[in-house]
Amino acid sequence: MRISELARRSGVSVPTIKYYLRVGLLTAGRTTAHNQALYDDSHVRQLRLVHVFVDIGGLSVMATRDLLTAINRSGVSAERLLGAVDAAWAPTRRRGSGGESRDEVRPALTALAAGRGWRMPRDGHTLQRLADACAAARTLDMKELCDALDAYAKAAEHMAECDIAVATALAGRLGPGPDRAGPDRAVLLETVIAAIVLGDAVLAALHSMAREDGLARLLGRWAAGSCDGDRDEESPFTFT
Amino acid sequence: MRISELARRSGVSVPTIKYYLRVGLLTAGRTTAHNQALYDDSHVRQLRLVHVFVDIGGLSVMATRDLLTAINRSGVSAERLLGAVDAAWAPTRRRGSGGESRDEVRPALTALAAGRGWRMPRDGHTLQRLADACAAARTLDMKELCDALDAYAKAAEHMAECDIAVATALAGRLGPGPDRAGPDRAVLLETVIAAIVLGDAVLAALHSMAREDGLARLLGRWAAGSCDGDRDEESPFTFT
Repeated sequence: MRISELARRSGVSVPTIKYYLRVGLLTAGRTTAHNQALYDDSHVRQLRLVHVFVDIGGLSVMATRDLLTAINRSGVSAERLLGAVDAAWAPTRRRGSGGESRDEVRPALTALAAGRGWRMPRDGHTLQRLADACAAARTLDMKELCDALDAYAKAAEHMAECDIAVATALAGRLGPGPDRAGPDRAVLLETVIAAIVLGDAVLAALHSMAREDGLARLLGRWAAGSCDGDRDEESPFTFT
Repeated sequence: MRISELARRSGVSVPTIKYYLRVGLLTAGRTTAHNQALYDDSHVRQLRLVHVFVDIGGLSVMATRDLLTAINRSGVSAERLLGAVDAAWAPTRRRGSGGESRDEVRPALTALAAGRGWRMPRDGHTLQRLADACAAARTLDMKELCDALDAYAKAAEHMAECDIAVATALAGRLGPGPDRAGPDRAVLLETVIAAIVLGDAVLAALHSMAREDGLARLLGRWAAGSCDGDRDEESPFTFT
Protein backbone atom coordinates (compact mmCIF):
# COMPACT_ATOMS: atom_id res chain seq x y z
CA MET A 1 0.00 0.00 0.00
CA ARG A 2 1.05 3.60 -0.48
CA ILE A 3 1.75 5.99 2.38
CA SER A 4 -1.71 7.56 2.08
CA GLU A 5 -3.36 4.17 2.56
CA LEU A 6 -0.98 3.40 5.45
CA ALA A 7 -2.06 6.69 7.06
CA ARG A 8 -5.73 5.83 6.58
CA ARG A 9 -5.40 2.34 8.03
CA SER A 10 -3.22 3.30 10.99
CA GLY A 11 -4.90 6.60 11.84
CA VAL A 12 -1.47 8.30 11.82
CA SER A 13 -1.04 11.35 9.56
CA VAL A 14 1.30 11.27 6.53
CA PRO A 15 3.64 13.96 7.95
CA THR A 16 3.93 12.01 11.20
CA ILE A 17 4.65 8.78 9.32
CA LYS A 18 7.39 10.61 7.36
CA TYR A 19 8.85 11.86 10.62
CA TYR A 20 8.81 8.34 12.07
CA LEU A 21 10.57 7.05 8.93
CA ARG A 22 13.19 9.80 9.20
CA VAL A 23 14.09 9.00 12.82
CA GLY A 24 14.05 5.23 12.22
CA LEU A 25 10.99 4.49 14.33
CA LEU A 26 9.31 2.88 11.32
CA THR A 27 11.15 0.53 8.95
CA ALA A 28 11.44 1.84 5.38
CA GLY A 29 8.94 0.69 2.77
CA ARG A 30 9.82 -1.16 -0.41
CA THR A 31 10.91 1.37 -3.03
CA THR A 32 9.29 0.97 -6.44
CA ALA A 33 10.45 1.98 -9.89
CA HIS A 34 8.42 5.17 -9.65
CA ASN A 35 10.48 6.34 -6.68
CA GLN A 36 7.56 5.60 -4.40
CA ALA A 37 7.60 3.39 -1.31
CA LEU A 38 5.13 0.64 -0.66
CA TYR A 39 4.11 -0.51 2.80
CA ASP A 40 2.46 -3.63 4.18
CA ASP A 41 0.62 -4.91 7.25
CA SER A 42 3.83 -4.96 9.28
CA HIS A 43 3.98 -1.17 8.98
CA VAL A 44 0.38 -0.83 10.14
CA ARG A 45 1.26 -2.94 13.16
CA GLN A 46 4.41 -0.92 13.89
CA LEU A 47 2.37 2.29 13.87
CA ARG A 48 -0.19 0.75 16.23
CA LEU A 49 2.58 -0.21 18.64
CA VAL A 50 4.06 3.28 18.40
CA HIS A 51 0.63 4.69 19.27
CA VAL A 52 0.58 2.54 22.41
CA PHE A 53 4.06 3.45 23.58
CA VAL A 54 4.09 7.13 22.59
CA ASP A 55 0.49 8.34 22.84
CA ILE A 56 -0.87 6.10 25.58
CA GLY A 57 2.28 5.15 27.51
CA GLY A 58 3.95 8.56 27.18
CA LEU A 59 7.31 7.17 26.09
CA SER A 60 9.41 9.52 23.96
CA VAL A 61 9.75 8.80 20.24
CA MET A 62 13.44 8.00 20.68
CA ALA A 63 12.85 5.69 23.66
CA THR A 64 10.17 3.89 21.64
CA ARG A 65 12.55 3.48 18.71
CA ASP A 66 15.23 2.04 20.99
CA LEU A 67 12.69 -0.26 22.65
CA LEU A 68 11.35 -1.66 19.36
CA THR A 69 14.91 -2.09 18.06
CA ALA A 70 15.92 -3.96 21.21
CA ILE A 71 12.86 -6.22 21.04
CA ASN A 72 13.81 -7.26 17.53
CA ARG A 73 17.45 -7.83 18.42
CA SER A 74 18.10 -11.40 19.48
CA GLY A 75 20.18 -11.91 22.58
CA VAL A 76 18.48 -9.27 24.70
CA SER A 77 16.74 -11.00 27.59
CA ALA A 78 13.07 -10.22 28.15
CA GLU A 79 13.74 -9.42 31.79
CA ARG A 80 16.27 -6.73 30.88
CA LEU A 81 13.88 -5.32 28.30
CA LEU A 82 11.00 -5.11 30.77
CA GLY A 83 13.25 -3.38 33.27
CA ALA A 84 14.35 -0.92 30.60
CA VAL A 85 10.74 -0.16 29.68
CA ASP A 86 9.91 0.59 33.28
CA ALA A 87 12.92 2.86 33.66
CA ALA A 88 12.21 4.71 30.40
CA TRP A 89 8.60 5.07 31.36
CA ALA A 90 8.88 6.33 34.92
CA PRO A 91 10.59 9.69 34.40
CA THR A 92 7.92 10.80 31.94
CA ARG A 93 5.37 10.33 34.69
CA ARG A 94 7.08 11.60 37.81
CA ARG A 95 9.96 13.76 38.77
CA GLY A 96 11.52 13.24 42.14
CA SER A 97 13.60 15.49 44.28
CA GLY A 98 16.25 14.87 46.88
CA GLY A 99 15.95 15.45 50.56
CA GLU A 100 16.99 14.00 53.85
CA SER A 101 13.55 12.64 54.69
CA ARG A 102 13.76 10.42 51.63
CA ASP A 103 16.74 8.61 53.06
CA GLU A 104 14.90 8.25 56.36
CA VAL A 105 12.00 6.33 54.80
CA ARG A 106 14.11 4.00 52.64
CA PRO A 107 14.70 1.27 55.26
CA ALA A 108 10.95 0.98 55.91
CA LEU A 109 10.27 0.61 52.19
CA THR A 110 12.97 -2.02 51.74
CA ALA A 111 11.39 -3.90 54.64
CA LEU A 112 7.96 -3.56 53.02
CA ALA A 113 9.18 -5.14 49.77
CA ALA A 114 11.02 -7.87 51.65
CA GLY A 115 7.94 -8.56 53.78
CA ARG A 116 5.87 -9.21 50.66
CA GLY A 117 8.57 -11.41 49.18
CA TRP A 118 9.24 -9.05 46.27
CA ARG A 119 12.65 -8.96 44.71
CA MET A 120 14.08 -5.46 44.96
CA PRO A 121 13.83 -3.42 41.75
CA ARG A 122 17.09 -3.52 39.84
CA ASP A 123 17.59 0.14 39.03
CA GLY A 124 16.40 1.73 42.25
CA HIS A 125 14.31 4.32 40.38
CA THR A 126 11.07 2.77 41.55
CA LEU A 127 12.12 2.64 45.17
CA GLN A 128 13.23 6.25 44.83
CA ARG A 129 9.81 7.33 43.53
CA LEU A 130 8.18 5.54 46.42
CA ALA A 131 10.57 7.09 48.91
CA ASP A 132 9.91 10.54 47.39
CA ALA A 133 6.18 10.16 47.83
CA CYS A 134 6.48 8.87 51.40
CA ALA A 135 8.93 11.61 52.31
CA ALA A 136 6.54 14.24 50.93
CA ALA A 137 3.72 12.68 52.96
CA ARG A 138 5.86 12.91 56.08
CA THR A 139 6.80 16.55 55.57
CA LEU A 140 3.08 17.34 55.14
CA ASP A 141 2.20 15.49 58.36
CA MET A 142 0.14 12.79 56.61
CA LYS A 143 0.87 9.85 58.81
CA GLU A 144 -2.41 8.29 57.62
CA LEU A 145 -0.87 7.78 54.17
CA CYS A 146 2.31 6.24 55.55
CA ASP A 147 0.23 3.97 57.80
CA ALA A 148 -1.65 2.75 54.72
CA LEU A 149 1.47 1.48 52.91
CA ASP A 150 0.64 -2.16 53.54
CA ALA A 151 -2.87 -1.66 52.17
CA TYR A 152 -1.44 0.07 49.10
CA ALA A 153 1.03 -2.80 48.63
CA LYS A 154 -1.85 -5.31 48.68
CA ALA A 155 -3.71 -3.26 46.08
CA ALA A 156 -0.52 -3.10 44.00
CA GLU A 157 -0.21 -6.87 44.14
CA HIS A 158 -3.79 -7.11 42.94
CA MET A 159 -2.90 -4.78 40.02
CA ALA A 160 0.16 -6.84 39.13
CA GLU A 161 -1.89 -10.05 39.18
CA CYS A 162 -3.98 -8.61 36.35
CA ASP A 163 -0.85 -7.84 34.32
CA ILE A 164 0.59 -11.29 34.89
CA ALA A 165 -2.70 -12.98 33.99
CA VAL A 166 -2.85 -11.08 30.70
CA ALA A 167 0.82 -11.77 29.92
CA THR A 168 0.33 -15.46 30.67
CA ALA A 169 -2.77 -15.64 28.46
CA LEU A 170 -0.99 -13.83 25.61
CA ALA A 171 2.00 -16.15 25.85
CA GLY A 172 -0.35 -19.13 25.89
CA ARG A 173 -1.90 -18.03 22.62
CA LEU A 174 1.06 -16.41 20.83
CA GLY A 175 3.92 -18.41 22.30
CA PRO A 176 5.57 -21.32 20.54
CA GLY A 177 3.56 -24.51 20.85
CA PRO A 178 4.90 -27.92 21.75
CA ASP A 179 6.25 -28.15 18.20
CA ARG A 180 8.50 -25.15 18.89
CA ALA A 181 7.13 -23.49 15.80
CA GLY A 182 4.71 -20.61 15.98
CA PRO A 183 4.92 -16.94 15.23
CA ASP A 184 7.92 -14.74 15.78
CA ARG A 185 8.89 -14.38 19.42
CA ALA A 186 9.52 -10.68 18.90
CA VAL A 187 5.80 -10.38 18.18
CA LEU A 188 4.99 -12.01 21.52
CA LEU A 189 7.49 -9.88 23.37
CA GLU A 190 6.29 -6.59 21.89
CA THR A 191 2.68 -7.65 22.46
CA VAL A 192 3.30 -8.44 26.13
CA ILE A 193 5.14 -5.15 26.67
CA ALA A 194 2.39 -3.21 24.88
CA ALA A 195 -0.20 -5.06 27.00
CA ILE A 196 1.58 -3.94 30.17
CA VAL A 197 1.56 -0.32 29.00
CA LEU A 198 -2.11 -0.57 28.04
CA GLY A 199 -2.96 -2.34 31.29
CA ASP A 200 -1.44 0.57 33.16
CA ALA A 201 -3.58 3.04 31.20
CA VAL A 202 -6.67 0.89 31.81
CA LEU A 203 -5.94 0.73 35.53
CA ALA A 204 -5.28 4.47 35.74
CA ALA A 205 -8.60 5.27 34.09
CA LEU A 206 -10.60 2.71 36.10
CA HIS A 207 -8.89 3.83 39.31
CA SER A 208 -9.86 7.39 38.51
CA MET A 209 -13.48 6.33 37.96
CA ALA A 210 -13.65 4.22 41.11
CA ARG A 211 -11.99 6.94 43.19
CA GLU A 212 -14.28 9.65 41.85
CA ASP A 213 -17.23 7.49 42.76
CA GLY A 214 -15.87 6.70 46.22
CA LEU A 215 -15.02 10.32 46.96
CA ALA A 216 -18.45 11.46 45.80
CA ARG A 217 -20.05 8.99 48.22
CA LEU A 218 -17.75 10.13 51.03
CA LEU A 219 -18.57 13.79 50.32
CA GLY A 220 -22.22 12.87 50.18
CA ARG A 221 -22.02 11.26 53.62
CA TRP A 222 -20.26 14.31 54.99
CA ALA A 223 -22.80 16.62 53.37
CA ALA A 224 -25.56 14.53 54.93
CA GLY A 225 -24.02 15.35 58.29
CA SER A 226 -22.46 12.04 59.21
CA CYS A 227 -18.82 11.20 58.68
CA ASP A 228 -18.82 7.58 59.74
CA GLY A 229 -22.44 6.98 60.61
CA ASP A 230 -21.90 7.68 64.31
CA ARG A 231 -20.84 11.27 64.51
CA ASP A 232 -22.97 14.17 63.42
CA GLU A 233 -20.45 16.31 61.63
CA GLU A 234 -20.63 19.14 59.20
CA SER A 235 -18.93 18.33 55.90
CA PRO A 236 -15.29 19.38 56.14
CA PHE A 237 -15.37 19.97 52.40
CA THR A 238 -18.23 22.42 52.10
CA PHE A 239 -17.15 26.04 52.06
CA THR A 240 -19.71 28.38 53.52
CA MET B 1 12.57 33.73 58.05
CA ARG B 2 14.47 35.04 55.04
CA ILE B 3 14.25 33.48 51.59
CA SER B 4 17.54 31.61 52.09
CA GLU B 5 16.15 29.94 55.22
CA LEU B 6 12.88 29.19 53.39
CA ALA B 7 14.92 27.51 50.64
CA ARG B 8 16.83 25.46 53.18
CA ARG B 9 13.75 24.32 55.05
CA SER B 10 11.67 23.52 51.96
CA GLY B 11 14.43 22.05 49.81
CA VAL B 12 13.41 24.39 46.95
CA SER B 13 16.12 26.61 45.47
CA VAL B 14 16.00 30.41 45.84
CA PRO B 15 15.63 31.05 42.07
CA THR B 16 12.71 28.59 41.95
CA ILE B 17 11.08 30.25 44.96
CA LYS B 18 11.45 33.64 43.20
CA TYR B 19 9.84 32.17 40.09
CA TYR B 20 6.95 30.78 42.13
CA LEU B 21 6.48 34.22 43.75
CA ARG B 22 6.50 35.90 40.32
CA VAL B 23 3.76 33.65 38.88
CA GLY B 24 1.67 33.81 42.05
CA LEU B 25 2.11 30.17 43.06
CA LEU B 26 3.49 31.26 46.43
CA THR B 27 1.94 34.08 48.45
CA ALA B 28 4.21 37.08 48.95
CA GLY B 29 6.23 37.40 52.16
CA ARG B 30 5.96 40.28 54.61
CA THR B 31 8.11 43.17 53.39
CA THR B 32 10.40 44.72 55.99
CA ALA B 33 11.93 48.16 56.24
CA HIS B 34 15.11 46.91 54.64
CA ASN B 35 13.20 46.02 51.45
CA GLN B 36 13.49 42.37 52.30
CA ALA B 37 10.66 39.87 52.58
CA LEU B 38 10.13 37.58 55.51
CA TYR B 39 8.45 34.19 55.27
CA ASP B 40 6.84 31.85 57.78
CA ASP B 41 5.74 28.23 58.21
CA SER B 42 2.79 28.74 55.85
CA HIS B 43 5.28 29.34 53.02
CA VAL B 44 7.17 26.16 53.87
CA ARG B 45 3.89 24.28 53.72
CA GLN B 46 2.92 25.88 50.40
CA LEU B 47 6.24 24.82 48.89
CA ARG B 48 5.77 21.27 50.15
CA LEU B 49 2.34 21.13 48.53
CA VAL B 50 3.77 22.54 45.29
CA HIS B 51 6.39 19.79 45.38
CA VAL B 52 3.63 17.18 45.62
CA PHE B 53 1.52 18.58 42.79
CA VAL B 54 4.32 19.64 40.41
CA ASP B 55 7.20 17.23 41.03
CA ILE B 56 5.36 14.11 42.10
CA GLY B 57 1.92 14.56 40.51
CA GLY B 58 3.21 16.14 37.30
CA LEU B 59 0.74 19.05 37.33
CA SER B 60 1.92 22.17 35.55
CA VAL B 61 2.95 25.19 37.64
CA MET B 62 -0.06 27.14 36.37
CA ALA B 63 -2.51 24.31 37.04
CA THR B 64 -1.10 24.01 40.56
CA ARG B 65 -1.50 27.75 41.13
CA ASP B 66 -5.11 27.62 39.97
CA LEU B 67 -5.77 24.56 42.13
CA LEU B 68 -4.34 26.11 45.30
CA THR B 69 -6.22 29.35 44.61
CA ALA B 70 -9.49 27.47 44.15
CA ILE B 71 -8.96 25.48 47.35
CA ASN B 72 -8.61 28.69 49.31
CA ARG B 73 -11.64 30.30 47.69
CA SER B 74 -14.81 29.63 49.64
CA GLY B 75 -17.83 28.56 47.64
CA VAL B 76 -16.05 26.03 45.44
CA SER B 77 -17.38 22.58 46.24
CA ALA B 78 -14.89 19.87 47.06
CA GLU B 79 -16.44 17.58 44.48
CA ARG B 80 -15.88 20.08 41.69
CA LEU B 81 -12.33 20.63 42.89
CA LEU B 82 -11.53 16.92 42.91
CA GLY B 83 -12.96 16.57 39.42
CA ALA B 84 -10.85 19.50 38.26
CA VAL B 85 -7.71 17.95 39.74
CA ASP B 86 -8.35 14.73 37.90
CA ALA B 87 -8.95 16.53 34.61
CA ALA B 88 -5.83 18.72 35.03
CA TRP B 89 -3.82 15.70 35.93
CA ALA B 90 -4.82 13.25 33.22
CA PRO B 91 -3.45 15.00 30.12
CA THR B 92 0.01 15.23 31.64
CA ARG B 93 0.02 11.47 31.94
CA ARG B 94 -1.58 10.28 28.70
CA ARG B 95 -2.39 11.58 25.31
CA GLY B 96 -5.22 9.96 23.45
CA SER B 97 -6.02 9.81 19.80
CA GLY B 98 -9.22 9.50 17.84
CA GLY B 99 -10.36 6.52 15.89
CA GLU B 100 -13.44 4.56 15.00
CA SER B 101 -12.59 1.62 17.23
CA ARG B 102 -12.74 3.94 20.22
CA ASP B 103 -16.41 4.60 19.59
CA GLU B 104 -16.99 0.88 19.22
CA VAL B 105 -15.72 0.07 22.70
CA ARG B 106 -17.54 2.89 24.50
CA PRO B 107 -20.84 1.07 25.14
CA ALA B 108 -19.01 -1.85 26.76
CA LEU B 109 -17.13 0.52 29.05
CA THR B 110 -20.27 2.38 30.03
CA ALA B 111 -21.84 -0.98 30.87
CA LEU B 112 -18.76 -1.91 32.90
CA ALA B 113 -19.04 1.24 35.05
CA ALA B 114 -22.80 0.77 35.44
CA GLY B 115 -22.29 -2.88 36.38
CA ARG B 116 -20.04 -1.88 39.24
CA GLY B 117 -22.43 0.83 40.38
CA TRP B 118 -20.02 3.66 39.60
CA ARG B 119 -21.36 7.06 38.67
CA MET B 120 -20.08 8.03 35.27
CA PRO B 121 -17.18 10.48 35.30
CA ARG B 122 -18.39 14.02 34.77
CA ASP B 123 -16.00 15.22 32.10
CA GLY B 124 -15.70 12.13 29.95
CA HIS B 125 -11.88 12.42 29.78
CA THR B 126 -11.42 9.34 31.91
CA LEU B 127 -13.80 7.23 29.87
CA GLN B 128 -12.01 8.48 26.76
CA ARG B 129 -8.62 7.38 28.08
CA LEU B 130 -10.07 3.99 28.88
CA ALA B 131 -11.68 3.73 25.46
CA ASP B 132 -8.38 4.73 23.82
CA ALA B 133 -6.51 1.96 25.61
CA CYS B 134 -9.13 -0.67 24.83
CA ALA B 135 -9.32 0.42 21.20
CA ALA B 136 -5.53 0.14 20.90
CA ALA B 137 -5.70 -3.33 22.45
CA ARG B 138 -8.31 -4.35 19.89
CA THR B 139 -6.31 -3.07 16.90
CA LEU B 140 -3.32 -5.06 18.19
CA ASP B 141 -5.44 -8.22 18.55
CA MET B 142 -5.09 -8.42 22.33
CA LYS B 143 -8.43 -9.86 23.26
CA GLU B 144 -6.86 -11.17 26.47
CA LEU B 145 -6.56 -7.60 27.73
CA CYS B 146 -10.14 -6.70 26.83
CA ASP B 147 -11.33 -9.92 28.48
CA ALA B 148 -9.56 -8.87 31.69
CA LEU B 149 -11.46 -5.59 32.06
CA ASP B 150 -13.58 -6.88 34.93
CA ALA B 151 -10.48 -8.06 36.77
CA TYR B 152 -8.84 -4.66 36.19
CA ALA B 153 -12.00 -2.94 37.49
CA LYS B 154 -11.86 -5.02 40.70
CA ALA B 155 -8.20 -4.06 41.17
CA ALA B 156 -9.12 -0.41 40.55
CA GLU B 157 -11.80 -0.62 43.22
CA HIS B 158 -9.19 -2.02 45.59
CA MET B 159 -6.93 0.95 44.74
CA ALA B 160 -9.73 3.45 45.33
CA GLU B 161 -10.56 1.84 48.69
CA CYS B 162 -7.04 2.78 49.84
CA ASP B 163 -7.57 6.39 48.76
CA ILE B 164 -10.93 6.63 50.48
CA ALA B 165 -9.59 5.07 53.68
CA VAL B 166 -6.77 7.63 53.80
CA ALA B 167 -9.12 10.53 53.01
CA THR B 168 -11.53 9.36 55.71
CA ALA B 169 -8.73 9.05 58.27
CA LEU B 170 -7.36 12.51 57.39
CA ALA B 171 -10.82 14.06 57.69
CA GLY B 172 -11.29 12.30 61.01
CA ARG B 173 -8.15 13.91 62.37
CA LEU B 174 -8.12 17.29 60.60
CA GLY B 175 -11.84 17.86 60.14
CA PRO B 176 -13.96 19.97 62.43
CA GLY B 177 -14.88 18.19 65.63
CA PRO B 178 -18.29 18.10 67.29
CA ASP B 179 -17.63 21.66 68.44
CA ARG B 180 -17.41 22.78 64.80
CA ALA B 181 -14.11 24.40 65.57
CA GLY B 182 -10.83 22.97 64.36
CA PRO B 183 -8.27 24.03 61.80
CA ASP B 184 -8.99 25.68 58.50
CA ARG B 185 -11.00 23.56 56.13
CA ALA B 186 -8.78 24.63 53.25
CA VAL B 187 -5.96 22.81 55.03
CA LEU B 188 -8.02 19.62 55.13
CA LEU B 189 -9.04 19.94 51.51
CA GLU B 190 -5.52 20.56 50.23
CA THR B 191 -4.23 17.73 52.41
CA VAL B 192 -6.79 15.26 51.06
CA ILE B 193 -6.06 16.27 47.46
CA ALA B 194 -2.31 16.03 48.06
CA ALA B 195 -2.85 12.61 49.68
CA ILE B 196 -4.68 11.40 46.57
CA VAL B 197 -1.82 12.57 44.35
CA LEU B 198 0.74 10.93 46.65
CA GLY B 199 -1.35 7.77 46.90
CA ASP B 200 -1.28 7.54 43.13
CA ALA B 201 2.51 7.85 43.11
CA VAL B 202 2.78 5.24 45.87
CA LEU B 203 0.52 2.84 43.97
CA ALA B 204 2.42 3.40 40.71
CA ALA B 205 5.74 2.59 42.38
CA LEU B 206 4.42 -0.41 44.31
CA HIS B 207 2.61 -1.67 41.20
CA SER B 208 5.86 -1.43 39.28
CA MET B 209 7.67 -3.40 42.00
CA ALA B 210 4.98 -6.08 42.25
CA ARG B 211 4.76 -6.38 38.47
CA GLU B 212 8.51 -6.63 38.05
CA ASP B 213 8.54 -9.39 40.64
CA GLY B 214 5.60 -11.19 39.03
CA LEU B 215 7.08 -10.96 35.54
CA ALA B 216 10.45 -12.19 36.77
CA ARG B 217 8.73 -15.24 38.28
CA LEU B 218 6.77 -15.82 35.07
CA LEU B 219 9.93 -15.54 32.97
CA GLY B 220 11.65 -17.85 35.40
CA ARG B 221 8.93 -20.47 34.96
CA TRP B 222 9.17 -20.14 31.20
CA ALA B 223 12.94 -20.36 31.34
CA ALA B 224 12.61 -23.48 33.48
CA GLY B 225 10.64 -24.98 30.61
CA SER B 226 7.13 -24.91 32.01
CA CYS B 227 4.59 -22.26 31.21
CA ASP B 228 1.82 -23.34 33.51
CA GLY B 229 3.25 -26.36 35.22
CA ASP B 230 1.65 -28.76 32.76
CA ARG B 231 3.20 -28.00 29.44
CA ASP B 232 6.87 -28.37 28.66
CA GLU B 233 7.54 -25.24 26.68
CA GLU B 234 10.60 -23.31 25.71
CA SER B 235 10.55 -19.76 27.04
CA PRO B 236 8.88 -17.51 24.48
CA PHE B 237 11.02 -14.65 25.77
CA THR B 238 14.49 -16.10 25.36
CA PHE B 239 16.20 -15.10 22.15
CA THR B 240 18.64 -17.68 20.93
